[in-house]
Amino acid sequence: MVGGGQGGFIGRVHRIAARFDDRFALVAGALSSNPVRARDSAAAWEIAPDRAYADWRAMAAAEAVRGDGIEAVVVVTPNESHHAICRMFLDAGIEVICEKPLATSLEQARDLVRAARGRVFGVTYGYTGYPMVREARAQIAAGVLGAVRMVQVEFTLGWLAHPLETSGNKQASWRTDPARAGPSGVVADIGTHAIHLAEFVSGLRLHAVAADLARIVPGRRVEDSANILLRFTSGARGIAWVSMVAAGVDVGLRLRVFGERGHLDWSQASANELKVAFADEPTRVLVRGGPGLSAEAKRASHIVGGLPEGIFEAFATLYHDFAEAIAAHRAGRTIDPLHSWYPTVEDGARGMAFVDAVLRSDAADGAWTELADMEREERA
Amino acid sequence: MVGGGQGGFIGRVHRIAARFDDRFALVAGALSSNPVRARDSAAAWEIAPDRAYADWRAMAAAEAVRGDGIEAVVVVTPNESHHAICRMFLDAGIEVICEKPLATSLEQARDLVRAARGRVFGVTYGYTGYPMVREARAQIAAGVLGAVRMVQVEFTLGWLAHPLETSGNKQASWRTDPARAGPSGVVADIGTHAIHLAEFVSGLRLHAVAADLARIVPGRRVEDSANILLRFTSGARGIAWVSMVAAGVDVGLRLRVFGERGHLDWSQASANELKVAFADEPTRVLVRGGPGLSAEAKRASHIVGGLPEGIFEAFATLYHDFAEAIAAHRAGRTIDPLHSWYPTVEDGARGMAFVDAVLRSDAADGAWTELADMEREERA
Amino acid sequence: MVGGGQGGFIGRVHRIAARFDDRFALVAGALSSNPVRARDSAAAWEIAPDRAYADWRAMAAAEAVRGDGIEAVVVVTPNESHHAICRMFLDAGIEVICEKPLATSLEQARDLVRAARGRVFGVTYGYTGYPMVREARAQIAAGVLGAVRMVQVEFTLGWLAHPLETSGNKQASWRTDPARAGPSGVVADIGTHAIHLAEFVSGLRLHAVAADLARIVPGRRVEDSANILLRFTSGARGIAWVSMVAAGVDVGLRLRVFGERGHLDWSQASANELKVAFADEPTRVLVRGGPGLSAEAKRASHIVGGLPEGIFEAFATLYHDFAEAIAAHRAGRTIDPLHSWYPTVEDGARGMAFVDAVLRSDAADGAWTELADMEREERA
Amino acid sequence: MVGGGQGGFIGRVHRIAARFDDRFALVAGALSSNPVRARDSAAAWEIAPDRAYADWRAMAAAEAVRGDGIEAVVVVTPNESHHAICRMFLDAGIEVICEKPLATSLEQARDLVRAARGRVFGVTYGYTGYPMVREARAQIAAGVLGAVRMVQVEFTLGWLAHPLETSGNKQASWRTDPARAGPSGVVADIGTHAIHLAEFVSGLRLHAVAADLARIVPGRRVEDSANILLRFTSGARGIAWVSMVAAGVDVGLRLRVFGERGHLDWSQASANELKVAFADEPTRVLVRGGPGLSAEAKRASHIVGGLPEGIFEAFATLYHDFAEAIAAHRAGRTIDPLHSWYPTVEDGARGMAFVDAVLRSDAADGAWTELADMEREERA
Repeated sequence: MVGGGQGGFIGRVHRIAARFDDRFALVAGALSSNPVRARDSAAAWEIAPDRAYADWRAMAAAEAVRGDGIEAVVVVTPNESHHAICRMFLDAGIEVICEKPLATSLEQARDLVRAARGRVFGVTYGYTGYPMVREARAQIAAGVLGAVRMVQVEFTLGWLAHPLETSGNKQASWRTDPARAGPSGVVADIGTHAIHLAEFVSGLRLHAVAADLARIVPGRRVEDSANILLRFTSGARGIAWVSMVAAGVDVGLRLRVFGERGHLDWSQASANELKVAFADEPTRVLVRGGPGLSAEAKRASHIVGGLPEGIFEAFATLYHDFAEAIAAHRAGRTIDPLHSWYPTVEDGARGMAFVDAVLRSDAADGAWTELADMEREERA
Repeated sequence: MVGGGQGGFIGRVHRIAARFDDRFALVAGALSSNPVRARDSAAAWEIAPDRAYADWRAMAAAEAVRGDGIEAVVVVTPNESHHAICRMFLDAGIEVICEKPLATSLEQARDLVRAARGRVFGVTYGYTGYPMVREARAQIAAGVLGAVRMVQVEFTLGWLAHPLETSGNKQASWRTDPARAGPSGVVADIGTHAIHLAEFVSGLRLHAVAADLARIVPGRRVEDSANILLRFTSGARGIAWVSMVAAGVDVGLRLRVFGERGHLDWSQASANELKVAFADEPTRVLVRGGPGLSAEAKRASHIVGGLPEGIFEAFATLYHDFAEAIAAHRAGRTIDPLHSWYPTVEDGARGMAFVDAVLRSDAADGAWTELADMEREERA
Repeated sequence: MVGGGQGGFIGRVHRIAARFDDRFALVAGALSSNPVRARDSAAAWEIAPDRAYADWRAMAAAEAVRGDGIEAVVVVTPNESHHAICRMFLDAGIEVICEKPLATSLEQARDLVRAARGRVFGVTYGYTGYPMVREARAQIAAGVLGAVRMVQVEFTLGWLAHPLETSGNKQASWRTDPARAGPSGVVADIGTHAIHLAEFVSGLRLHAVAADLARIVPGRRVEDSANILLRFTSGARGIAWVSMVAAGVDVGLRLRVFGERGHLDWSQASANELKVAFADEPTRVLVRGGPGLSAEAKRASHIVGGLPEGIFEAFATLYHDFAEAIAAHRAGRTIDPLHSWYPTVEDGARGMAFVDAVLRSDAADGAWTELADMEREERA
Repeated sequence: MVGGGQGGFIGRVHRIAARFDDRFALVAGALSSNPVRARDSAAAWEIAPDRAYADWRAMAAAEAVRGDGIEAVVVVTPNESHHAICRMFLDAGIEVICEKPLATSLEQARDLVRAARGRVFGVTYGYTGYPMVREARAQIAAGVLGAVRMVQVEFTLGWLAHPLETSGNKQASWRTDPARAGPSGVVADIGTHAIHLAEFVSGLRLHAVAADLARIVPGRRVEDSANILLRFTSGARGIAWVSMVAAGVDVGLRLRVFGERGHLDWSQASANELKVAFADEPTRVLVRGGPGLSAEAKRASHIVGGLPEGIFEAFATLYHDFAEAIAAHRAGRTIDPLHSWYPTVEDGARGMAFVDAVLRSDAADGAWTELADMEREERA
C-alpha cells in the first residue's frame, strides 16, 4: 500500500476491505510521506521492517525483485501523485489498485491506460460494489426497463459548506488545492464517482456535457458545486448534480435511471434496497439477500438478507473481484463473469475525460462539449 | 365556473376546494363547450337553469349585470382560452381565479397583469397551499438556513411515457397539441408549477436559464422532458427537471433549498412533513399539525396533526385565501397577512416568462437566457 | 346532524365529507347542547331557522313528520348520548350515521343492533374509507397471502401524555371522564378503531383477549394505554397496542397482517400506499391511483394517483357508501357491492364487545377472555 | 474459536469483526465437530496445524498451557454445547466470548455467571454494537425522554414460515430441535436479543411477563412465534413480539421507548439513524457520524457519516470492547467507560431468565410470571 497510514480515512477502508474475504494480506507499504508515521503504521500492522518503505519508489524497486514480492499495490495518496506511482508499479510488473480520481489530467490517465494493457488495474469507484447497484445494472442489462431514456444522478456532501481549508483541516486543504487535487474540485473528487455509477448501471456511454460550475464558498480555489446536463451517445438525456457545499447532507448519492417501461431508484442512504417502478404494475422493492435477485447481486452479498451491509462490504466486493482478476491473470485464464464487474483503468480514464469536458464546457459558458473518447479515437 | 363540467379532472378539485371552508358557492357556470354536458353538469350541481350558460361570453355579460351576479369566476379550460376568458371577466368587473399556465404566451400574460391591476386575480398553483410548503417558506424567510445558495426542483409525471395522444386520450391530446396547449408542453404544464414553487419557497427570483428540451416519445409535437439549469438574481444556482415521460412515477414533485447552514427538503409524496437538515445539529422533521410550526403553516392546516391532508385541502387553502382577498378588496381593507400567500396574476406571468426563456434557450442550443422581467422593465 | 357545532373537531370532518360527492346536504340540526352555539352554527351553515333545533328529541319528532324531513341523521355527540339519540331517530324512521364508539356499554349496542334490523345504520370507523385499506382487504380476500396467521395492530396518540383534563381542555375532559366517555378510555376511544380495522382487513373474527390496562398519567380515571393479546376464531394470533400517552406521536395507526406467503403493511402516516411483502418474490408497493389495484380500491379513490388524499377523502368514501346504502334501501334494491364495505351497527356493537372483553380480562389480571358474540348467541 | 468452520453463518461474522480493529488474531480453533471441515477451515485461515484441534476439550487443555496460548475463545456452536464449552475454557483460565443464547437452561446460565466472577465473559448480543443503539441508550440515560413509561420491541424473521426443517436445512433443523436448541425456539433464539436490547437501551429491568406462545407451522416442535406482555420493575409496561414465521420479513428488529416527554424509535432496517420524537418540539433524526451525537455513539462508529455501516461493524464494535476489557483485566486497570457497554455473562443469564419466565407463563395459560432474579436472590 502506498499512502494510507494511521489516521488516514480511505486507507483504513482499503485495509479492512482487502482482507474481508481472506484474499489479500498487507505485507509491504510506503504508508506515508512522513517517515515516522510510515514506520509507526507499518509496525502497528505487523509489516516486516524491511518492507516498511520510506518511499514508494524504493518500494516498487525492492518488491519487484523479491521472490515473495507483492502481487498488487494499493495507491491511496492525494490525486496529484497517482499517475507517477501507478506508472512506476506497472513498470515494475506489479498490478495496481488505485483510488479515484485516477489522475489529475486526461493525458496522465491515458498514459496509464496504455501502460496497463494486458494487465490488471483496478480503480476503487467503491459504490459499484454495493449488491443493489449491481442488481440495478443486471436489471437494465436484462431489459427490464426497455430502452433507457433519462439518467439522474446526484452526489452531494455538506462538509465543505464552510471554508474548512482556511482553518487547517487536512482533508479539506488538499481537496481544494489545485496543486494537489488538480484543476477540478468537486467534479474530480466525487463527480467521477457519479458518472461512473451512471454509466456502470445504465450501460450508456456519456457523449457530451453542458456544465455550470460554481465556487460557492468565497475564496475557494476550485469549483465546489456543479450542475451538469448530460447527453449520452444513445440519445438519452440526464443531469448530474455534484456539490460539496450541500449543507445538512452527510453523503447524498442517488441514481435514477428511466426507461420506456419504468425506472430504477437507488440511494446510498438505503443502500440495501433498490426500487424498481413500473408504469403498468406495482413498484417492486428488492432487498439485498431477499427474493428475486440476479446472480450478480447475490455474488456481491456478504451475509443473509435483513442484516445491513455498508461501505466496507461494498469495498470488500471490489477487492474480491480484484483478487479474482489477479488470480485469473496470473493463471492465464478468463475471469469468472460474476467477478468481472470491477472498475478498471479505462473507467478511471473515462472519469478524467468527464472532468476534462466539464471544465471545457464551463469555460465556454456552458456550451455543449463532447467527451474525448480514447476508444473511438483509436478505432479511427 | 368556466369549464370543469362532469367528468373533468381539475374542475372537480376546484368545486370541492372552493366550498371546503364555506366561503364559496357554485351558482353559475359555462361548464363545457359541449352544450349537453354543460347543461347536465349544471343540473347535477343545482345551478339554476338561467345561470347555466352555454357560452362564457354570455355568462360574463349576464352575471355582470345581475344584482346577485357572481363575485368571482373560476377558469379551468384548456390553456389556449385562458387569456380571452380571464380578460372578458376582468372587464366585466368580476374577479378571476385561473388555472395554470396563465396563458400560452408571455404577451397574453402581461396583458392580464395590466388588466388586473387593482383587482383580485388568483392563479391556482395548488401546491403552494400545502401547509408544509408554507412552513418551508416561513423558515427560509426567518433565516433558518442563512443565505440560499442552491435550489433543486423536480416535477415529473409518467403518464405520457407512451403516446397516449395517438389513441384518443382526451387529456393527452390537448396537452400535447401546440394549438391548444401552446408552444410548450411539459414546461408550460408543470414546469411553471416547479418554478413557482421554487421562487415561492426560496424567496429568490429566477434570472436566467440554460435548457435542454427533449421530445422523447417519437412523433410528439411538444417537448415532453426538460433539463434546465437555473441562475437566480442573488447568484444562487439550481436545477429544474420536468418530465411527463418518467415511467413509473405517478407525480414526482420535490423541492430542496440549500442555504449556508442547512437545507429544506419537501416532497409531495410525503406532503405532510418537511425535513430541515443542518450542518451542525440533528435534522428536524416538522409535521403538519405538530410542534414548532409557523403561524403560516398553522393557518393552512385543516385538521389536527397525524391525520393526513392531501391535494383537496391544499386547494382549499388557496380558496380560503382567495375568499379573504376578495372580501378584503370589496371592503377596501388590507388582507390579513396570513391569507396573503396565494399565487397572483403576476405569478402566473412569471411562469410564462419562464416558459418563454426556456424555449429561447433551447432554440439557442442551451445558451444562458435571461427571463423577461416585467417589473424591472417598468421600473426602467 | 346532532352535535358537531362550530369549533367542534369531528363534526367538521363529517360536514365536509358528506357533501364531497354531492350526495348529502345539511338541512337540519341540533348542533349543540349550548343553544347559542346551536343557533349560530345553524345560521353559519344556512340551515333554515325552523330546522335549527335546540334539542335532538325535538328534531327527531319534527323531522319525522315533515314532507321534506331528513333521510338520515349524523350523530357526533360524546359517547354517553349515542344510544339514546340513535334509538330515537331509528324509532322515528330516520336512518342513522353514528360516530364510534357506538355506545358506552355492550347492552346499549345490542339494543341498537336489534332496533336497526332492516334499516341502514352506519358507524364512522373512518379509516376503512382509505383506498389502500380497502385494497388490503381485497388482497387478503383474494388469497394473496394464503391463510392469515398473525395480526399486529397499533393505534397510538400522544396528546394525553400530560393530564390535559386537569387544565380545562374540553376534548381531554370528556374523553377521560367515565361519566361521559363510558368505563373505558383509550380502548373505547381508539381501540375500537383498531379492532375494526383488523377484522375488516383480515377477514378474521376476534375470539378472545388478554389485556393489560394502564393508567399511566397519575390521577387519570380511565385507562390511557392498553397492551392486548389477541386470539381469533381461526386460530390466528395477534397484538393490539392502543395508547393516548405515546408522547411524540401525533396519530400512529398501523396494521400488519401476516399470512402463509407474505404480509401486508399499512400505516396511516403513508396512507396512500400499501406494502405487500412476500417470502418468495420482491415486495410490492401499491399506491392509490397506481397500477395493479382492485376495483374496491379504485372505487374509493377521489383523484388520479400521485396526488395525496387524506382523512377527509376517507370519510367522504364512507359517506358515498352510506348514500348508496340509503338509496338502495329506499328503492328496495340490493346495494352495489363496491359500496357495501361500510361499517354498520353490527361493527359498532363488535367494538363494544371488544371493550367489554378487555375490561373483563384486565379485571381478571389478564386472563384470556372471550368476546360476547351476539350472532353466535342468536344462532344457538 | 470453537465452531464457526467454513460455510457457517455466524462464525464468519465473528472472524471478520474480531480483526476489524486489529485487536484480535485467529490463531487456534476447534472449528467443527466434523474433523475434515475443522482441518480444512483451519488451513484456509492459516491456523498452524498444531493449533487446529479436532476437539474443544483438547483445545482448552493445550492452549491453557502454551506460552503463547490464546487469551480468549469465541464460542459459536449450537446452543446446547455453550455451557460445557464456556465452563471448560473459563476453568482453563481463558476468557470467553459466547454467542447467544448463553445456554439452554437458567441453571446452566447461572453456573456460568458464578464461574465467570472476576473474569471477562462477553456475549454477542450484536445489535448493541450499532452506534445509534448506543446513542439511544445515552439519550435515555441523559433524561432526554423523562421517565420511561412504555417499551415496544419486535424481532421477527420470515425464513421459517415454511417447515424448512423437514427438508434438510441445517440451520432450520438445529434451531427447531429441542435437543440442540433447548426447550424454547424463537424466544431463545431471538427473543433474548429483543429483551437485551430493550433493557440495554431503556435502562429498565424486566419484572414479569405474560406470554402467548404459538407453534404456527404444523408439526413444529418449538414455539415459532410469541406475543409477550411486559412489566418492568419501574412500573413501565411493554410488548415483545418475536416470530420466525413472519413471511415476507427478512429481519425485522425495531425498538421504541416512550417516556414522559417523547420517544425513541430505532429499526435495524435503517440502522444508521435514530428518530427522537417529542411532544413539544419537532422530531429529530440523528444519524451515525452526524451532528449532535453522544461520545458513546461516536466511539462505536467506524467511518465518517453518510456512508452506511452494517452488522459487521456492529459486531466489530463489540469486539473492540471485548479487547479493551481483556486488556484492562490483564493490566489490572479499570476499563474505559466508552468501552464498557458490551454484553456480559450476566446479560446472557438475564436472557435465560426471560426464556424461563416466558415458558412458565405460557404453561400457565398466559398468567403474569416474574423473572427469576439472581441478583435480587443473592442480595436477599
